[in-house]
Amino acid sequence: MTVELISVGTELLLGNIVNTNAAYLAEKCAGLGLTCYFQTTVGDNRERLGAALRKAMGRSDVILLSGGLGPTEDDLTKETAAEVCGKKLVLHEPSRKAIKRYFEAKGLKPTDNNWKQAMLPEGGMVLENHNGTAPGVILEVENTKVVLLPGPPNELCPMFEESVMPYLTGLTAQVICSQTVKICGVGESRAETMVKDLIDAQTNPTIATYAKTGEVHIRVTAAATDRKAAMKLIKPVVKELKSRFGNDVYSTEEDTSLEKSVVDLLQANDLTVTCAESCTGGLLSARLVNVPGASEVYKAGVITYSNKAKRRFLGVKKSTLQKYGAVSEQTAEEMAKGAALTLKADAAVAVTGVAGPDGGTEEKPVGLVYIACSVKGKVTVKKYHFSGSRGKVRESAVSAALALLRSCILEYFSKVTFGKKD
Amino acid sequence: MTVELISVGTELLLGNIVNTNAAYLAEKCAGLGLTCYFQTTVGDNRERLGAALRKAMGRSDVILLSGGLGPTEDDLTKETAAEVCGKKLVLHEPSRKAIKRYFEAKGLKPTDNNWKQAMLPEGGMVLENHNGTAPGVILEVENTKVVLLPGPPNELCPMFEESVMPYLTGLTAQVICSQTVKICGVGESRAETMVKDLIDAQTNPTIATYAKTGEVHIRVTAAATDRKAAMKLIKPVVKELKSRFGNDVYSTEEDTSLEKSVVDLLQANDLTVTCAESCTGGLLSARLVNVPGASEVYKAGVITYSNKAKRRFLGVKKSTLQKYGAVSEQTAEEMAKGAALTLKADAAVAVTGVAGPDGGTEEKPVGLVYIACSVKGKVTVKKYHFSGSRGKVRESAVSAALALLRSCILEYFSKVTFGKKD
Repeated sequence: MTVELISVGTELLLGNIVNTNAAYLAEKCAGLGLTCYFQTTVGDNRERLGAALRKAMGRSDVILLSGGLGPTEDDLTKETAAEVCGKKLVLHEPSRKAIKRYFEAKGLKPTDNNWKQAMLPEGGMVLENHNGTAPGVILEVENTKVVLLPGPPNELCPMFEESVMPYLTGLTAQVICSQTVKICGVGESRAETMVKDLIDAQTNPTIATYAKTGEVHIRVTAAATDRKAAMKLIKPVVKELKSRFGNDVYSTEEDTSLEKSVVDLLQANDLTVTCAESCTGGLLSARLVNVPGASEVYKAGVITYSNKAKRRFLGVKKSTLQKYGAVSEQTAEEMAKGAALTLKADAAVAVTGVAGPDGGTEEKPVGLVYIACSVKGKVTVKKYHFSGSRGKVRESAVSAALALLRSCILEYFSKVTFGKKD
Repeated sequence: MTVELISVGTELLLGNIVNTNAAYLAEKCAGLGLTCYFQTTVGDNRERLGAALRKAMGRSDVILLSGGLGPTEDDLTKETAAEVCGKKLVLHEPSRKAIKRYFEAKGLKPTDNNWKQAMLPEGGMVLENHNGTAPGVILEVENTKVVLLPGPPNELCPMFEESVMPYLTGLTAQVICSQTVKICGVGESRAETMVKDLIDAQTNPTIATYAKTGEVHIRVTAAATDRKAAMKLIKPVVKELKSRFGNDVYSTEEDTSLEKSVVDLLQANDLTVTCAESCTGGLLSARLVNVPGASEVYKAGVITYSNKAKRRFLGVKKSTLQKYGAVSEQTAEEMAKGAALTLKADAAVAVTGVAGPDGGTEEKPVGLVYIACSVKGKVTVKKYHFSGSRGKVRESAVSAALALLRSCILEYFSKVTFGKKD
């Protein structure tokens, strides 16, 4: 079965935003075993969008349109798709009510154009939007399926996973299943080298590596007549990958992020954690706190951006800052120790570095970051060199901090429990 | 003059990489006054790429192809384009020498397929690649220009700026300029209603609204014979928008984010700021600290996720937490006051709310957030209802906190300076 993406939005044609939806949808569709030959981007223009949709309907089985479902005048994806598919727009009462509730919950009054979002193509399957006011729609026209999705990624992604994926899965006779082995603390090239023989020998299941910031994901995908048979093909490969990467595998669950695996590990070992951040400015705490239920393990954290704050809140010694500087192994270590003490946590992670774009020197270039981790008083400090923009350096530092915290906890408990050296 | 992008690469169709080249090229072309109606992505497939190129050549003046110029077998953009344009591939001696030099400089030996990159379409204009081995090419076929660019962004971007931009500038008689009025604290529908008359009456310049989390951007775009004339058309419209939205306009500069405008405002008024965060868990501080130079105004912040931490680090009263709860106007106010005092800052922003997905009650549902802002002791507290996922609620809260901080500073200084009430 073939799928084709049509992204709608003048802001894409003007280059105001990067089309992350296309990559997201393409990856999900590939995972479902759908073949994608074309992706098209057109503006909020009835004629050109209509032509693109007609063309797509003539050559692909499933057309995913994203964007242009908003309340404003230039949002016309729904109107155009209805016209091309020969459907009328009719008031969809549940959507009207949902819009009403959405605004009431916010204590706001909808404007006239908001109601436009409740007008949907007759006979379409309506997809609820839990993160906005634009419902999605699936239209079936003979053998072709036309799926309308909202443009904002935080609306599109949950809607695709909740409603469209199960629908598409139901259309295919073959089942495609995949499992992802998620690895932290190993670079992409090294990970690829470690599995090259498996990739070269692959047929079914197939194996593919994906680099993420500070992580590598290895996806194992199998095709079979049913889910059970597919999972049976996947299982031995996942087992092999786990044995090759050992403790660096943090999860094989689809919805487990690195931060979730860290929160789970803290919970399992009955530990609390705190963060003392300089260059990352709160991002590390924010990632931990984004895990639902993080409050059990995370109580408080500090951002000590200035040297004074590092001394005052974490007890970093003036002499340490003077002798080694704020970006140093010694300062990172004192930050972690001080944070564990002041914020009364079993574990503490401290991050200090040069995020750039300015402030780099020959000795301490932009991208140099020290991360210290204290677990029940045992402190580990590591030095990192990250590349890229200020934002990229900070994101990389946060991922590395989570990976370090994870490995320090594992090491601490492996020693405590089994008395092993590693 | 119209331009059209064709991105070539199976990795794009599989969603393995995000197509940042398309956004980059689209933005640059818009800046040059070229109109882009279509962007297409196809795989490394001769037939489909050929068809896409023929279609594009029939409807656009300039076609920019990116990707597929590499040395491997599946790189066939050059071969396909040459065929479609009716050109032979011939050895380009300077490119052969450049490839030789490139490998020698790295101490490597080129493999046989590397020489393939020196075979270029006859009569084409060759574009040097200073960051890789694949030269770019411009082919002129009657009135259509076909430009072949390498896929890696670190090769494509410099080649486009060094060689293609000057070439395209030479072709156009018209210039397109735009300016964006960036607004915070106003919803998209309300903003749209406020400018509907302007949008309805638009011809040149055109006006378009874009919703961002907690922000609305209104872009004003004009076409003219030169930049000066275009800016002259834009100026009165921007002035009108500024007058309609008043203090809610935080910037009209392309590279000024909401957080940058807040940091600038703090600097201009010689204020330091701190953040006390509960549900946002560090995100607010992280956004402020992401502004280069934030260290001048931001020294330290705290994340007080537990009630105990709110009491201990911010001096929130036990009785307040018991009587009103952690998510309340009263707690938010005490958090902001406590933060300003403990962290010794002129301004303090405190955020406390129910980010979800759990923890909501009928009285305090998921999405309820209180934000308090203290400017030199004057505290303002606002209640918000945000919708969406945990991540969305937190992001919306951060944007609202920045907008509130901004308006509190403006109000404080308008009163101090002019003694006005608002």
